Amino acid sequence: MLSFVGLGISGFESIPIEGLETISTADIVYLEQFTSPISESDLKKIQDSIKGEFKLAKRWLVEDGNEILEMSKEKNVVLLAYGDPYIATTHIELRARAIENKIKTHSIHASSSLTSMIGECGLHFYKIGRIATIMSEMKSLTTPYYVIYKNLIEGNHTVLLLEYNQDKKFFLDPKDALKGLLETEQGQTRNVITESNYVIIASRIGFKDQAIVCGKISSLKETDFGKPPHTIIIPGRLHFTESDALKLFGKCIDEPFDNSEKTEKISNQMMKKYVPMVREALEEIEPLYKNQKEFEIILDNAERYIKDAEIFLGEGRDENAILSIGYADGLVDALRLAKGLEFKM
Amino acid sequence: MLSFVGLGISGFESIPIEGLETISTADIVYLEQFTSPISESDLKKIQDSIKGEFKLAKRWLVEDGNEILEMSKEKNVVLLAYGDPYIATTHIELRARAIENKIKTHSIHASSSLTSMIGECGLHFYKIGRIATIMSEMKSLTTPYYVIYKNLIEGNHTVLLLEYNQDKKFFLDPKDALKGLLETEQGQTRNVITESNYVIIASRIGFKDQAIVCGKISSLKETDFGKPPHTIIIPGRLHFTESDALKLFGKCIDEPFDNSEKTEKISNQMMKKYVPMVREALEEIEPLYKNQKEFEIILDNAERYIKDAEIFLGEGRDENAILSIGYADGLVDALRLAKGLEFKM
Repeated sequence: MLSFVGLGISGFESIPIEGLETISTADIVYLEQFTSPISESDLKKIQDSIKGEFKLAKRWLVEDGNEILEMSKEKNVVLLAYGDPYIATTHIELRARAIENKIKTHSIHASSSLTSMIGECGLHFYKIGRIATIMSEMKSLTTPYYVIYKNLIEGNHTVLLLEYNQDKKFFLDPKDALKGLLETEQGQTRNVITESNYVIIASRIGFKDQAIVCGKISSLKETDFGKPPHTIIIPGRLHFTESDALKLFGKCIDEPFDNSEKTEKISNQMMKKYVPMVREALEEIEPLYKNQKEFEIILDNAERYIKDAEIFLGEGRDENAILSIGYADGLVDALRLAKGLEFKM
Repeated sequence: MLSFVGLGISGFESIPIEGLETISTADIVYLEQFTSPISESDLKKIQDSIKGEFKLAKRWLVEDGNEILEMSKEKNVVLLAYGDPYIATTHIELRARAIENKIKTHSIHASSSLTSMIGECGLHFYKIGRIATIMSEMKSLTTPYYVIYKNLIEGNHTVLLLEYNQDKKFFLDPKDALKGLLETEQGQTRNVITESNYVIIASRIGFKDQAIVCGKISSLKETDFGKPPHTIIIPGRLHFTESDALKLFGKCIDEPFDNSEKTEKISNQMMKKYVPMVREALEEIEPLYKNQKEFEIILDNAERYIKDAEIFLGEGRDENAILSIGYADGLVDALRLAKGLEFKM
């Protein structure tokens, strides 16, 4: 039998009652610490509550899994893991392999930093978009950058997990992660992350020295966020109850504000540029085609498609809006080119 | 002092060690059950472990909050809540009000069904998109429908929470929720939810009679999912380890498959239609403008913009792709209209 037991986010104290019973009666307890560090005092409390064998499990041992699975065939084995056991996909895969090997499995869930930190910051859980991870060895932060972009245009909050490497005792500093995102902005220029963005740094959530610090990136440049683990949250649209709670629960260097306002959808950016441009180009050529029936049809169509584009945008049919303004632009430019004028795409 | 204590997802057994200590020494423990039902036997175990006063708290009492806040000024008060305490925004607001009233607060997190169910289904947590709720009194399911659409085109999984009304002892049947989504598809026609969609119904996650049933909507029409709470998960792109785990952890009536393949981005749908159409229209008029230099420039431009549209789509710059194909279409149609041909928008 192989039991996956969550340790929760606050050390020994956050183990569920059922989890404590399970580890205390197990033949072997493997403790993995590669998703988050565990303090010496918690380690001691865990060891003291175990009657069977206790083993620290490195990442490779869990990923390889053979020893744990072999032991579980005959004995009562527990894999004790920080937070909720199945946030780490490694544990899901180990459970799947156990079932394939006809080993009975049992799961005891516990608090996860992913859910806890949202509430600790006063944010609404249903507004969290897809999460992203930032690793120091990433060649580019384009993927997390576009996760943030897509979340922001939907008004969603983004949780950015930062690298923690147990073997190297390395944790990615939130300031370095933000620096990487600002550099990515230079290349991508979608106005997703600038120094005036509002960010929340949630540190050591669940521990006694938990800290939530927030403000503009420019205001946090010199801040020491202390020991890991840290997480960055990029808030999207903020309900007033979220802003109010954030101010009460965290240390806000700046007043919280909505990041999603400045990150405009690409379709909106395009429409703002093209609608007035095409309209102006159309007005310029209208006199040149006066009383030429076959060309007036084209001008009428251009006029109609500009209007349609605006209606589509208002209805949230962004793709149709872009297609229409592009089409109107093409109609107008054909007539301009035919008269030897500059085109306006 | 006001402590928010999570009960976790498995009744009394899932309370964290620290949570049990906190409720056992509190002067008053309020238990709220409006987010999920709690069994009689768990209720008894909770009551037995409490030395102080025990009170069941209806939704209005927590939302109003005055009694709880008043009591917390002088006494050690606990609000005990199903799952993690801050998934319910009501509890976040109550904590904010407590702090404003200079009442000390304390939070004890616990397992949440939102995180637990993902792992129980073998899915990867980082692939969860924004969650949505379906209520029976909703006039339309357009909002959850578009949450699913947006998640699917990003390959994300969607968690759909279903209404539970404690006072009316009402829970929304997953089959009714799916029926509502299928009806919404009739009006919206984005090919988001059809009977051939793959869905997962996760029931009573964390309890002994937990069940995970999955298959095409058409295969689940007669299934009785038993007692609440139920949640629907619409999987997006599935990693093979997710499909494998789902088959081992749940009861799959059909082989798991990727829902996101059939739900194509609107931009892709447009490009598939317009690129061949504009190209054909262009070829048709090319002979009519042979050796007319001012018009050949227009034809060359149209050709170039069709190619650009395809390149942009390949680069993921969807809006630019649509703008380009719209523009090419406009150029071509202007020349067609000028020759008295039908336009092709």
